[in-house]
Amino acid sequence: MRVRVYVTLKPSVFDPQGRTVTEALHSIGHDAVRDVRQGKYFELDVAAGTAAEASRIASAAADTLLANPVIESYRIDVDDPAAVGPGAAR
Amino acid sequence: MRVRVYVTLKPSVFDPQGRTVTEALHSIGHDAVRDVRQGKYFELDVAAGTAAEASRIASAAADTLLANPVIESYRIDVDDPAAVGPGAAR
Repeated sequence: MRVRVYVTLKPSVFDPQGRTVTEALHSIGHDAVRDVRQGKYFELDVAAGTAAEASRIASAAADTLLANPVIESYRIDVDDPAAVGPGAAR
Repeated sequence: MRVRVYVTLKPSVFDPQGRTVTEALHSIGHDAVRDVRQGKYFELDVAAGTAAEASRIASAAADTLLANPVIESYRIDVDDPAAVGPGAAR
């Protein structure tokens, strides 16, 4: 089952990478972009029978490896093929 | 306006970073995660009057700086405050 994990710095944490991207965008004329925060994005292929199990496995992976819980938070989306319609399992 | 940009390697491109994450997860017992592909995630604060304008500005930023079009593709989500309900602008 396909699981998407989005890892972002907590709002109170300074993001020098995002700051650099913002300045680079301004330097090439994209002034309408006022601010950028950069995070990480993972697509996991998880062996799980249900969306709930896939979500649990992805949470464990995020807690132990994908995210640093001190400064980062994460969000999980499960692509459940059994769900009716896109986004139904979110 | 808040715009989310997801940058991923094209499917045909080898992802050594994702491979390393997969092996690290297996080494700590998360064997149910069969494969990982790692990408980048950007949250942009864009000065735009409409969702369409914000999307156009974010696309230009992605084309010129956030993504490498040779090996990466990207997807854009606009959080339109004028839209009715979450996800309506997607």
